Amino acid sequence: MVKLTDVNSKLLKARYAVRGKIVNRAQELEGKGHKIIYCNIGNPQALKQKPLTFVRQVLSLLEYPALMDSPEAAKLFPADAVKRAKTILGHNPSGTGAYTQSAGIPFIRKAVADFIHHRDGIPADMNRVLLTDGASKGVQAAFTLLTNHENDGYMIPIPQYPLYSATIELYGAKQINYFLDEGAGWQLNEKELNASYEGAKKAGINPVAIAVINPGNPTGALLSHENIEMVIRFARKHHLAIMADEVYQENVYAPGHKFVSFAKVMHDMGETEATLFSFHSVSKGFLGECGHRGGYMEVRNMSDEVYAELVKLQSIGLCSNVDGQVVTYLMVAPPVKGDESYELYVKERDGILGDLKEKAGILGKGLSAIEGMHIDVPQGAMYAFVRFELPHPKGSYPAKMSPAELQKYGAARDEEYCLRLLEETGICVVPGSGFGQAPGTLHFRTTFLPPKEDILALVEKMKAFHSAYTAELKKK
Amino acid sequence: MVKLTDVNSKLLKARYAVRGKIVNRAQELEGKGHKIIYCNIGNPQALKQKPLTFVRQVLSLLEYPALMDSPEAAKLFPADAVKRAKTILGHNPSGTGAYTQSAGIPFIRKAVADFIHHRDGIPADMNRVLLTDGASKGVQAAFTLLTNHENDGYMIPIPQYPLYSATIELYGAKQINYFLDEGAGWQLNEKELNASYEGAKKAGINPVAIAVINPGNPTGALLSHENIEMVIRFARKHHLAIMADEVYQENVYAPGHKFVSFAKVMHDMGETEATLFSFHSVSKGFLGECGHRGGYMEVRNMSDEVYAELVKLQSIGLCSNVDGQVVTYLMVAPPVKGDESYELYVKERDGILGDLKEKAGILGKGLSAIEGMHIDVPQGAMYAFVRFELPHPKGSYPAKMSPAELQKYGAARDEEYCLRLLEETGICVVPGSGFGQAPGTLHFRTTFLPPKEDILALVEKMKAFHSAYTAELKKK
Repeated sequence: MVKLTDVNSKLLKARYAVRGKIVNRAQELEGKGHKIIYCNIGNPQALKQKPLTFVRQVLSLLEYPALMDSPEAAKLFPADAVKRAKTILGHNPSGTGAYTQSAGIPFIRKAVADFIHHRDGIPADMNRVLLTDGASKGVQAAFTLLTNHENDGYMIPIPQYPLYSATIELYGAKQINYFLDEGAGWQLNEKELNASYEGAKKAGINPVAIAVINPGNPTGALLSHENIEMVIRFARKHHLAIMADEVYQENVYAPGHKFVSFAKVMHDMGETEATLFSFHSVSKGFLGECGHRGGYMEVRNMSDEVYAELVKLQSIGLCSNVDGQVVTYLMVAPPVKGDESYELYVKERDGILGDLKEKAGILGKGLSAIEGMHIDVPQGAMYAFVRFELPHPKGSYPAKMSPAELQKYGAARDEEYCLRLLEETGICVVPGSGFGQAPGTLHFRTTFLPPKEDILALVEKMKAFHSAYTAELKKK
Repeated sequence: MVKLTDVNSKLLKARYAVRGKIVNRAQELEGKGHKIIYCNIGNPQALKQKPLTFVRQVLSLLEYPALMDSPEAAKLFPADAVKRAKTILGHNPSGTGAYTQSAGIPFIRKAVADFIHHRDGIPADMNRVLLTDGASKGVQAAFTLLTNHENDGYMIPIPQYPLYSATIELYGAKQINYFLDEGAGWQLNEKELNASYEGAKKAGINPVAIAVINPGNPTGALLSHENIEMVIRFARKHHLAIMADEVYQENVYAPGHKFVSFAKVMHDMGETEATLFSFHSVSKGFLGECGHRGGYMEVRNMSDEVYAELVKLQSIGLCSNVDGQVVTYLMVAPPVKGDESYELYVKERDGILGDLKEKAGILGKGLSAIEGMHIDVPQGAMYAFVRFELPHPKGSYPAKMSPAELQKYGAARDEEYCLRLLEETGICVVPGSGFGQAPGTLHFRTTFLPPKEDILALVEKMKAFHSAYTAELKKK
């Protein structure tokens, strides 16, 4: 029988906090009848966010095309949904049931290129677009392409989304941490990047790429044009590829801020050297279609030969699922003014984004008012990465610990904190150590996806819990 | 910029013949207006096979649940499709738009376990079932779990489906070939397995698993109960895990033959030691839902700890797509007698399988009547692996070649043959060297999926082509 000692040691070491111990415990408690407020994962439709009607109408028609020819269809579906489904079938006559080209259905790749062109006012090439089963699979494809030697390393932000650390571990590459600047709204800091890079080189690591998440997960922060420029210059200087995780590009709430893509900044700078992978997904934004596993990866500054290897990699898994490809298409080519569905689409879109913005405000303001908690109102994404302070029980003061020991000590503390929070309040958040944090600091990540009344309740419960937990520690 | 020399050398070496050079050329020719008969890939719905109405009706309702409440629905959908969609939503209220548990939606895993129980009359555990994006992703998960050291090796059949060789190359493991016995209807041969195993050990390779494809791809052969028993004894003796690729289990055409699963034979033998991974898919059988990327992996003789690592691996990619999970559910829990959809379902199912059986016969008999071609009527799957003979042009006779040289010589010849076949007839098949073949033999793999008239035309065209090509070589 396969024993644990036979199992891939890289898999054994990989950790994926978003679905770990605390979530399992939450499911147990829920099974026993406790009410759980799930703030651990960006899974909007599991938290009662409604899908966009137009998206689902088109999918429904494509799954069962006979509907389109029925006289009842006109009563059930708006004309533009039927027309759109027919257009898709026209381009892709085998429908949702056949394998597509490895890179994805050509007209959808073309639509993605057009979307980027219109979003950023820059040229985009459909033959550098690959449709993927969610952004995660695109990110993993980039890692597979670039990981060539055992000492190849990836610079990733701390805190990060644990897909990155888990994939690096799994693929046997080296993780190179760079800390985001919490004091500067979680922007990237050039000095820190340089120090991180130099440290890696000294340790015999060969950095091959830098990953950036914008808007940030778990930070909820939006990077400025200048910050992105700095990263591109840095990458160019050190011959690093850039992985730009831009899945939250529609989730921007801060007044006066807007999302700026790496592709756009690269184009503005005339950068033709640094290879860029950028990722987008149907799971976030206002669609929240996580279950459909759709997304795309666009690459820039990549030769035909290297691109062909990416396509070959996709071909080994045949292709991404067709419904996910279709949702990606509808994301990049929504109804336009004059279409029958336009008004409802806009109403639903603005409703979801307005609701998220309001909840980001409630959460950010509510938690920052709690003594010992520090958080700005998230500018974007679906998360707040909340710093909190705890008194040290007597005898456990970490003054003499090394940074590594300090980090371990923090991990034990934030995990204990989050578990107790879950047990006592039903609130399920993820410890900061699952994403990484500066030694000596404590955080947790919470989404602001649950319904408004749950977010309001969360703030109140958190306040009571934190105060009681702190008092308890002080007594120890 | 990322250069070809920077790319993962394992990816560079991986080959996936089913979507390689010949298919690209076919697409080029098609673009120029040539009619192509695509026999290269098991993609039924791209070749005009119709999806099952019931499957698509349920999907259509799930994508747009508002349909269920409309008065028109009763006219458009049979009652059991509506009921089924409601049952699914009852078990999984967040519908198709939310991430599921990493291993898949629990009630669907339960349905898979029940399916195995009823198919084989053996116990099956839903907590050893994982839902995957097609069988390919399940196979790759098993390879990821088991590949621990550079010299870990996998015994794979020759000929094989190139997912295996490509994944082994990509994951940096060692490929251990065992030849299927063409003279004995492509069964596995114990002496050959022993020789292959011993050869690998001598070469310093550590065999960890044996892969078996039943019914066979590309061979179309069905393994007997005795043959499977022999493989299980062999695996047990050498502490090998078994990967049983059983995606063609519904595709059995030979009178008097039936599919026997590895799980069933293991249970009958009381085998509790050898770990089994078995794979199934919605892409084959009579559903042919390739585009939906659904399937499952069932494991046996695996501890909780090791199983937890498989689940963790799935969690890093979040979950398989929900529509694919739903199609898997409908595959394992079809309409039953008394349901409104039952008759149509049976009619469509039997129509597709009857058509495939007829085409297998036409192809097998037609090609075996061609001088210099050898093929039995395929017993199952969707493929024929046709052996053909070519005269050796003067001066190229391979009498003094080593087996490796002979194999290379054969690969050049079968590729040239298939390319010329494509150019002259529009028939797109895959060279035998893409799957592997005994040194000194030549093959191609063809599906029997295209419409009957295309299969009839294929036989005629192939006959003329083979005769002309042979005559040409003789003159050289």
